Amino acid sequence: MALSADQVHNLKQAPPMEGVLPVVLNRWSSRSFADLPVSREDLGKVFEAARWAASCQNEQPWRFLLGIRDSAPFDAIYTKLLDALLGFNQEWAGAAPVLVLGVVDSRFAHNGKENPYALYDLGGAMAHFTLQAASLGLTSRQLAGFNHDLVRENLQIPANYVLGIITALGYQGHPAALENEKLVAREVAPRERKALNELVFSSWGEPAELIV
Amino acid sequence: MALSADQVHNLKQAPPMEGVLPVVLNRWSSRSFADLPVSREDLGKVFEAARWAASCQNEQPWRFLLGIRDSAPFDAIYTKLLDALLGFNQEWAGAAPVLVLGVVDSRFAHNGKENPYALYDLGGAMAHFTLQAASLGLTSRQLAGFNHDLVRENLQIPANYVLGIITALGYQGHPAALENEKLVAREVAPRERKALNELVFSSWGEPAELIV
Repeated sequence: MALSADQVHNLKQAPPMEGVLPVVLNRWSSRSFADLPVSREDLGKVFEAARWAASCQNEQPWRFLLGIRDSAPFDAIYTKLLDALLGFNQEWAGAAPVLVLGVVDSRFAHNGKENPYALYDLGGAMAHFTLQAASLGLTSRQLAGFNHDLVRENLQIPANYVLGIITALGYQGHPAALENEKLVAREVAPRERKALNELVFSSWGEPAELIV
Repeated sequence: MALSADQVHNLKQAPPMEGVLPVVLNRWSSRSFADLPVSREDLGKVFEAARWAASCQNEQPWRFLLGIRDSAPFDAIYTKLLDALLGFNQEWAGAAPVLVLGVVDSRFAHNGKENPYALYDLGGAMAHFTLQAASLGLTSRQLAGFNHDLVRENLQIPANYVLGIITALGYQGHPAALENEKLVAREVAPRERKALNELVFSSWGEPAELIV
């Protein structure tokens, strides 16, 4: 029996834990998007949240190319990003009304030296972005599978910027719209994570005793 | 005139924006910490938030070494991390009751291939961690300046793990406790970020028109 979008959203919730930010537990990465645009106000809010992330030496190495389907002047970026997607990503991401490419300056502005934390910092900024999106009732999915050379060339990204990820953003759609059975199965599978005792150590490999 | 801890906290707030997650606007990176422990329950919550971050192929490459001052068995990690800090970090980080090292598995478990998004994903997990900390009334600061070789050796971190950052965690302290005038000046300086028109483009270098 096919699940509704609401049913999928419910099964993707992390177990509730008192005192943990609800948006952290509610956010998940959809592949199915409804045919609804994201308002310019909401786009402003997700980038505003990204902007306030922490970064090494406050370098803020992140830059974002904003693609919006059928909406000039942003449709050109959208099409170029969509054309560069690989594999399964081609199948689902075209339903998202917004595709954002995140790139990072690979060098510190003040001395030109390599910034080894640029991608790390972009990861933090995109966590802000995706949590903010979830808090607005939007859904998002970050994807790494795209032709970097093609994107760099078509979007004229300077050589000193490292390409990060593309984030699809929009409203969650009906899982059946994915058509491909493998994608539908992934869309309706519960979110899974390693347990804390696999992740937090009191010495290498030794689980830390935490109270959760 | 010296500012109080509350005054510093107030001047670090980002400008309010309706609909943006308050915790994103309230979180900032303190260097001053009060002499108060972090409860085991709160430690559980910050790691729980980190655990639910997104990652490439859901690899969850992150592992955390938890150091707690004067609290066995976590004091050993704490001392080893503190000993490895460089420069200014040595001066302030020892006041934080908790130091956490984040590392990442550099390879995908399912095929052993390099995971180029491992540090990116750790950045996302630590954004969850630091936002969750802020929501609990804690403060944190991530730092990259430490002797990686020393940490790897002293904490016996396997070669296939890449060292990320150390995060200091605790309750905000009085800025004057920093003593070093340069650190005090940084502690009481307003948070600054690039404007959105420097960060979000409709084509490379062309500011996107957003509604904020």
